Amino acid sequence: MPEVREASAEQARFLAELIDHGLILPSGVPGVYGHSAEFEDVRLRLEALLTRAAVENGAERLRFPPLLPRRHFEQSGYLSSFPHLAGTVYAFEGGEHDAEAQAERASRREDWDEFQQMTDLTLLPAACYPVYPAIAARGALPAGGVFVEAGGSWVFRHEPSHDPARRQMFRQHELVRIGDPEVVAGWHDEWAQRGLELLRRLGLEAELDNASDPFFGRRGRMLATSQRDQALKLEILAPIAGSEPTALASFNQHRDHFTAAYGIALAGGGVAHSACVGFGHERIVLALLGAHGLDPSRWPALAREALWRS
Amino acid sequence: MPEVREASAEQARFLAELIDHGLILPSGVPGVYGHSAEFEDVRLRLEALLTRAAVENGAERLRFPPLLPRRHFEQSGYLSSFPHLAGTVYAFEGGEHDAEAQAERASRREDWDEFQQMTDLTLLPAACYPVYPAIAARGALPAGGVFVEAGGSWVFRHEPSHDPARRQMFRQHELVRIGDPEVVAGWHDEWAQRGLELLRRLGLEAELDNASDPFFGRRGRMLATSQRDQALKLEILAPIAGSEPTALASFNQHRDHFTAAYGIALAGGGVAHSACVGFGHERIVLALLGAHGLDPSRWPALAREALWRS
Repeated sequence: MPEVREASAEQARFLAELIDHGLILPSGVPGVYGHSAEFEDVRLRLEALLTRAAVENGAERLRFPPLLPRRHFEQSGYLSSFPHLAGTVYAFEGGEHDAEAQAERASRREDWDEFQQMTDLTLLPAACYPVYPAIAARGALPAGGVFVEAGGSWVFRHEPSHDPARRQMFRQHELVRIGDPEVVAGWHDEWAQRGLELLRRLGLEAELDNASDPFFGRRGRMLATSQRDQALKLEILAPIAGSEPTALASFNQHRDHFTAAYGIALAGGGVAHSACVGFGHERIVLALLGAHGLDPSRWPALAREALWRS
Repeated sequence: MPEVREASAEQARFLAELIDHGLILPSGVPGVYGHSAEFEDVRLRLEALLTRAAVENGAERLRFPPLLPRRHFEQSGYLSSFPHLAGTVYAFEGGEHDAEAQAERASRREDWDEFQQMTDLTLLPAACYPVYPAIAARGALPAGGVFVEAGGSWVFRHEPSHDPARRQMFRQHELVRIGDPEVVAGWHDEWAQRGLELLRRLGLEAELDNASDPFFGRRGRMLATSQRDQALKLEILAPIAGSEPTALASFNQHRDHFTAAYGIALAGGGVAHSACVGFGHERIVLALLGAHGLDPSRWPALAREALWRS
């Protein structure tokens, strides 16, 4: 088991308050939580707000389950960059004898992993991953490319933590743009501004900043430096518990990484680029609860209006 | 890999039509699909209808992620009954050398399972499973017991099939009642009738019938017979593709199975029972598409009114 990240004093206090008010239900595993109706109602309003913003700007809505075919996962190159964060699905393939031994071991809390085998499925590492193969399956891109809104998808990160904002399983709301390199770069910048305005309208002290991904190992540190140097990743940060800011949304230019991996080309045959925008539902709800208090019915009028206006 | 179940000719034709109309996006793995906005809109209206029915009848809404702590999974006894359907989560715990070897193997489509280890998480086997430990954590039941509505949760069943109605990952909308044995039995019967009326109001040729779970192996056949003899499981069935009916909802009395496993007792200390009701979102949407046609805007007025009335 990986080490569980400790929470800061403020994060630990905030988690205790959220549990005490029944907004968060601990499962016994750090970073895996249930939610009350109050928490979920805010999250659903946020999801509707983000979907509306995307559709008004021309997005096509597609929805995907929390699992990705292992074949697509292998093609994506995720294991080279983030092996420590990935989750794979295993299952039982044996007969009656093994089934009995497995159940017996599990009931005694002894190891039963020898009975499990890798399946052809992995957990979704990011909400945009199923979009690329789905678009590739349509053939060459239409003129103007595509803009897909994938809703609030469940994604997995194997990084247990006592910080309530660092989950192992959480909802990532992704928008994906694929097309001409210049169009994609312009879309990326436009959405970074739109995202910033949207989160500030909710009353959050949000700031845009250069960022890098948590790449694995020594090679990862070089990748992170190069990503920063080329300004390929932006994040919107805001305080959640205490003054240390947390990323609520990220804006990523992939150049031809995914289009090459899945064979997506421009209508005329040229190289297509992709970019994605991801909003963390739970983190934004937590930032709102931290900024405006634990009772959403008493939040400032502007924040309530932005969320509940339709 | 388990054998993939073949579809009937009608099921295969229906799946092809759904894909052709863009309602379903194949992922390459049987039983794992994306959905279009049209499909998802019907599903969301169905979810709202079911949630409203539960809340109007006194349910408390709680929401849970698609993963269950392995400890709770082991306590539940699921591995004794359904080892063939369960999914467990594995992850990488190694250093740089292993990470490189793993990525290299994966990129060549060779086996890389030796680098993965069992985590403390499993996929959710049924949407009611997180409810019991969450209620147990509150202490003794309040007078009258509890009624929880867990929304449309993602659940996993390792049974690949080319029937579009048999998914590996799908949304199960569960209601759970825990309390006095007689109250729980009455609630179970009441919801079987309410579920039947609700699905008939949508224009489905729904019928209630005795049923049994797909228990594993030889011992499983005995368990299924005993379950039927005691009428512990009911299902609502309706045709989806062809005349063979498919279960759209199930109604399950657990007696003291879960309350004993998680230590849930009545306020006075007596034995509590539990029951759950599960509606299969995708199956109900598919039954509606099969019965009323692939364009929801042209469905019969009564079905549209029931779904879009609020």
